[in-house]
Amino acid sequence: MTLKELIKNPVVSWMAADGPEADIVITSRIRLARNLAGMPFPHLMSEQKVAEKIWETISKGLKNSPDLKLVSMSKLTDMERQMLLEKHLISPEHAEVVSPYRGIITNKTGSVAIMVNEEDHLRIQCLLSGLQLNQAYRYADDTDDLLEKELEYAFDDQWGYLTSCPTNVGTGMRASVMLHLPALTMTNQKGAVFNNIAQLGLTVRGLYGEGTEALGNFYQVSNQITLGQTEEDIINNLWTVTLHVVEQERNTRERLQSEMKYQLEDKVWRSYGLITHARVMTSNEALALLSDVALGVDLKILPPIPRQILNELMVAIRPAHLQATGGRKMETAERDITRAQVIKNTLNKIRSDRRDKND
Amino acid sequence: MTLKELIKNPVVSWMAADGPEADIVITSRIRLARNLAGMPFPHLMSEQKVAEKIWETISKGLKNSPDLKLVSMSKLTDMERQMLLEKHLISPEHAEVVSPYRGIITNKTGSVAIMVNEEDHLRIQCLLSGLQLNQAYRYADDTDDLLEKELEYAFDDQWGYLTSCPTNVGTGMRASVMLHLPALTMTNQKGAVFNNIAQLGLTVRGLYGEGTEALGNFYQVSNQITLGQTEEDIINNLWTVTLHVVEQERNTRERLQSEMKYQLEDKVWRSYGLITHARVMTSNEALALLSDVALGVDLKILPPIPRQILNELMVAIRPAHLQATGGRKMETAERDITRAQVIKNTLNKIRSDRRDKND
Repeated sequence: MTLKELIKNPVVSWMAADGPEADIVITSRIRLARNLAGMPFPHLMSEQKVAEKIWETISKGLKNSPDLKLVSMSKLTDMERQMLLEKHLISPEHAEVVSPYRGIITNKTGSVAIMVNEEDHLRIQCLLSGLQLNQAYRYADDTDDLLEKELEYAFDDQWGYLTSCPTNVGTGMRASVMLHLPALTMTNQKGAVFNNIAQLGLTVRGLYGEGTEALGNFYQVSNQITLGQTEEDIINNLWTVTLHVVEQERNTRERLQSEMKYQLEDKVWRSYGLITHARVMTSNEALALLSDVALGVDLKILPPIPRQILNELMVAIRPAHLQATGGRKMETAERDITRAQVIKNTLNKIRSDRRDKND
Repeated sequence: MTLKELIKNPVVSWMAADGPEADIVITSRIRLARNLAGMPFPHLMSEQKVAEKIWETISKGLKNSPDLKLVSMSKLTDMERQMLLEKHLISPEHAEVVSPYRGIITNKTGSVAIMVNEEDHLRIQCLLSGLQLNQAYRYADDTDDLLEKELEYAFDDQWGYLTSCPTNVGTGMRASVMLHLPALTMTNQKGAVFNNIAQLGLTVRGLYGEGTEALGNFYQVSNQITLGQTEEDIINNLWTVTLHVVEQERNTRERLQSEMKYQLEDKVWRSYGLITHARVMTSNEALALLSDVALGVDLKILPPIPRQILNELMVAIRPAHLQATGGRKMETAERDITRAQVIKNTLNKIRSDRRDKND
């Protein structure tokens, strides 16, 4: 798949929901920040000649990696960049600031996406379904090794990898998981859980970064510290904490099912009723209802809906994806109408497919 | 149908929705207050002998009316009395105060229901579907004539019919209509409309009397004055006002459909989604959602649902009817669960019948 195909495709690798604990751990992500030795960091590369040289160096560095393709962000439309953001393959800043020297390198499935000249020269990201931090690290590390054969990184024996922002110095690694925690949220336990997480040097953010904490009951947990810990330590720490949170979420779900059976079923079925019948729907409401529906499917309150479909929908209902589906620019009001249609059609199709199968 | 059968039957005459304007005017009701000459009013009949005599007189007075049957309220269970109230055939007070000398006289279809020894010795009521005030008056008047052949009424040439409460003296008549006004309510116009109504000597109450004004967007409009106006005047006044309000409601619905198409469709479909999917539902929420569904059917936003079914549901979801359906006493929490089931099953059956028909 080329980048343009990857953007158009409703599915990228992480949506498959085929990883371990994929009902609660939506994604595992490893990101490695790397910079070229002897070159100014991106925010300092004011001269066009320098920028061109960095771009060329990276471009040449890919010659032994036929699976990886570099595309300049300036070759993408506004909508395509937004779609990459909505698919969680680039950062908001990288979607916004357009320059011929900013780029993205992807593999065929979108499991590896490297931002070029974002905050660092290279931000190697690997994004997988479920709790697969080790696997994601292996892919990111392999990619890193491939690139390192061709490129000379800014590396200091004492400090480790040098990065544009000092908080990334050292391993240059950020490991994160995206968790779906409806039961802990519903029962007001998330505060306590997140406090514990913070004390272990980890940070909690919302679905699309800071300030989106409660959106659809999705939470990103990631390491804060990149210096003085090995990659293995960081991953093990996050892995252990994640497993613990997953267990708490599962226990709370069980408790809800035994102690608040009717209220829980009512909440889930109401959300299903709303999401399959509404004619106008904001993005935030859709995420909240999709969260309830996912919980209902997990707990077998609702008939089965493939988790991949729910993961796809979470992205398909975002503004740029909606406009791509509709084939044109849309104002907010029209998007809200189209969003309701897209969800209704998708979920009704699953229901009628299921009926046909049962006939 | 005997009274017990009438109570059990989900349908009484007014629910048929076969009268004129029955989409907006749910019922027309005429009530005539009558008292026996030379007998103390019910609240003054402290001696048992007097009470017995009144009861016997009325009982004998029915001898030429084979269609009318008298039953003592003390022969009915609490639940049966509540069901009569929920069917709008008796008043809250008549359901509550049990005495062997309080009774109800009904015809086979429940279109005529006479309360015996409620506030007056006789309260002849006729309740029909749609805007049928003249027809309802004719039935009530015919019944009144039949009874008057056998009974001597307390009547004064100057004052007219004498009644327990002076506000009913004169014609002893109260004429009322039950209106479904979702569009006027939604657009905050009901205040202005009801002010106009009040200036014409009419009163607005809620579905179950005072204090239930906004319940399901149903409003009872009735005359206040019984003295100094003929029955014809009272009915003509109410009829004219009702037609005017119906026209305002229809105009507002049209305006909503042209100016707020998507919001209206969204509201209606959301309510339909909720009412067919919720697992727990209070009576008030059910009425509010049924109101939206009725509006949706009227405006052809939703596929057709016979209005009789919606009228039946409005009563079937009340506590006593729910418990009768369930065959046992239920606490509020269980009723809320049963209510959700009853509505869901009824509406889903209509949908699947419609599908079978279309196949």
